[in-house]
Amino acid sequence: MAILKVSSKSSPNAVAGALAGVLREKGVAEMQVIGAGALNQAIKAIAIARGFVAPSGLDLICVPAFTDIQVNGEERTAIKLLVEPR
Amino acid sequence: MAILKVSSKSSPNAVAGALAGVLREKGVAEMQVIGAGALNQAIKAIAIARGFVAPSGLDLICVPAFTDIQVNGEERTAIKLLVEPR
Repeated sequence: MAILKVSSKSSPNAVAGALAGVLREKGVAEMQVIGAGALNQAIKAIAIARGFVAPSGLDLICVPAFTDIQVNGEERTAIKLLVEPR
Repeated sequence: MAILKVSSKSSPNAVAGALAGVLREKGVAEMQVIGAGALNQAIKAIAIARGFVAPSGLDLICVPAFTDIQVNGEERTAIKLLVEPR
């Protein structure tokens, strides 16, 4: 599955567009964030994307989970957000 | 519906416990946050609460949305998170 990596500098609108594209193509999307600022942009993007896909009858939900990833050789705890139609 | 207001100083574990309690009692819960720090604690709480309720066969999902609220007479945009079993 393609993983959308979102940072605190990502535009929620742009991420929402990418999210809607992945959902149309794959049916489900995974986002990955590290830190409160990045999570904020990701959640805003999901709220916006709900509006993008609602006209096609999709009701997006998200499932948050912790995940450990390697960043520059260091172990960091990231949050992954699985986004899919209900 | 009872609204759980989460701040950046809330403990994700404590919020997760409250969330699980509300879900058991009402079947659905609503969280409200203002700011990236508060949202971070709320999403962590949902990830933790998923583990609390999973043994009872519940698979928690969340639906993020924007909401306008009044804080000290000023209009602020908050994020609300609807949490419910899939």
